Amino acid sequence: MEKLEQLYEGKAKKVYKTDDPNEFIIEYKDDATAFNGEKKGSIGGKGVINNKMTELIFTMLEKQGIPTHFIKLLSESEQLVKAVTIFPLEVIIRNTAAGSICKRLGLEEGLKLEAPIFEFCYKNDDFGDPMINDYHVIAMKLATKEDIEVIRDMTFKINDILKAYFLEKGINLVDFKIEFGKTADGQIVLADEISPDTCRFWDVKTNEKLDKDRFRRNLGNVEEAYVEMLKRVKA
Amino acid sequence: MEKLEQLYEGKAKKVYKTDDPNEFIIEYKDDATAFNGEKKGSIGGKGVINNKMTELIFTMLEKQGIPTHFIKLLSESEQLVKAVTIFPLEVIIRNTAAGSICKRLGLEEGLKLEAPIFEFCYKNDDFGDPMINDYHVIAMKLATKEDIEVIRDMTFKINDILKAYFLEKGINLVDFKIEFGKTADGQIVLADEISPDTCRFWDVKTNEKLDKDRFRRNLGNVEEAYVEMLKRVKA
Ligand SMILES: Nc1ncnc2c1ncn2[C@@H]1O[C@H](COP(=O)(O)OP(=O)(O)O)[C@@H](O)[C@H]1O
Ligand SMILES: Nc1ncnc2c1ncn2[C@@H]1O[C@H](COP(=O)(O)OP(=O)(O)O)[C@@H](O)[C@H]1O
Ligand SMILES: [Mg+2]
Ligand SMILES: [Mg+2]
Repeated sequence: MEKLEQLYEGKAKKVYKTDDPNEFIIEYKDDATAFNGEKKGSIGGKGVINNKMTELIFTMLEKQGIPTHFIKLLSESEQLVKAVTIFPLEVIIRNTAAGSICKRLGLEEGLKLEAPIFEFCYKNDDFGDPMINDYHVIAMKLATKEDIEVIRDMTFKINDILKAYFLEKGINLVDFKIEFGKTADGQIVLADEISPDTCRFWDVKTNEKLDKDRFRRNLGNVEEAYVEMLKRVKA
Repeated sequence: MEKLEQLYEGKAKKVYKTDDPNEFIIEYKDDATAFNGEKKGSIGGKGVINNKMTELIFTMLEKQGIPTHFIKLLSESEQLVKAVTIFPLEVIIRNTAAGSICKRLGLEEGLKLEAPIFEFCYKNDDFGDPMINDYHVIAMKLATKEDIEVIRDMTFKINDILKAYFLEKGINLVDFKIEFGKTADGQIVLADEISPDTCRFWDVKTNEKLDKDRFRRNLGNVEEAYVEMLKRVKA
């Protein structure tokens, strides 16, 4: 397949058309942003690592029955995916309290939640990706009631799979953000990426953060954390 | 019954113990606040109006099968209520987009919602009453899954009753905030108040605002709006 015109440049990736209308190419960048684009920077090697990690995790999820957009790796920083219409939703699961929720609700960072917290945010940079609920999703026609049920069920299933998968690798899956899309033939699939950009990964023994929080909070060893996470996923 | 020590002074009301542990006295004040206490003022006659309006509306709701905390009026500004443990939740229904939701999500003020939007906020001034969902409510133990179901069902029923009730009075019920509590014997009842402080009321013909937004937005004729709303409720 041929890499045609760029459709979109986001904060961490670029999306290209191909000669097949049902397939896009995603190119992963080293660019990093935080706090809705307020903080900008770059993380050396991130594009290659996130491209590879997403391949490995999406392939593993497919084997466990989760439909994803992933088709195949094209190069170190590119992958071929199914073209989908992305639901403008950030779908979040929290197993442990960390980040924004602690500030918003006064929870202590590190608090283990008895049951996972599921959240929708409206994916819209102009409004700072505000949290919404099912009623807003439906009122704003971001997804139907039926879409929501599929997305929620799939998200909890993905969480169960990922929690166990990362625990085997000595990682506590604190929280993550995923995106879903609909293919031309109406199937809802997991899209976008799963990487240290979109998850919080804490080492089980030391609680060391191995994710984008090292960049957000200027903790140092940012590149090293991404390298370490890819090593664990490959192991 | 005897009015004993003050238990709590809130932004708009005071709560007193009585010689019966199952009954409290609520005294309605003229004090008005907005934007989480940032704007402070007073609305002449508000205490008396909101006390009376809450009596009339809660009595009407009881007749339609909604259990409430209301027992009886004691004076122009006081009412006797069932003592409850308040769920720290602001329960919101929106029939038309107005106020905070427009800013948060980019909706146009006045947009009629196809279906009502239901929201929970965590009633906590320190955190600015942030919006939460069922998962947060349960994780923070603000209410159980069963409590949530009762509260949600009752809230939609209250909305249906109030929408029709106010429409007869030439009022479009744009949105409202209610609170629920649990009595000593475990019953969940509608508590707090229903008044121009806690609802958005728009005249059906002119769209004139007849609620606390006149105070919040310095629209003038604040007292007059409260008087007009009581007149309509009494009619
Ligand atoms: N399979 C897909 N088809 C179409 N768009 C996709 C697909 N997977 C992810 N996307 C979108 O491509 C963009 C990826 O770039 P990214 O840098 O993450 O953007 P953003 O800054 O909007 O999050 C996102 O907007 C994402 O929603
Ligand atoms: N039946 C009741 N029993 C106990 N507390 C109640 C009852 N009804 C309302 N309350 C509480 O009494 C207080 C009323 O005062 P208000 O000025 O509205 O306070 P606030 O500023 O906290 O909203 C509120 O905190 C409300 O939750
Ligand atoms: Mg993105
Ligand atoms: Mg109050």
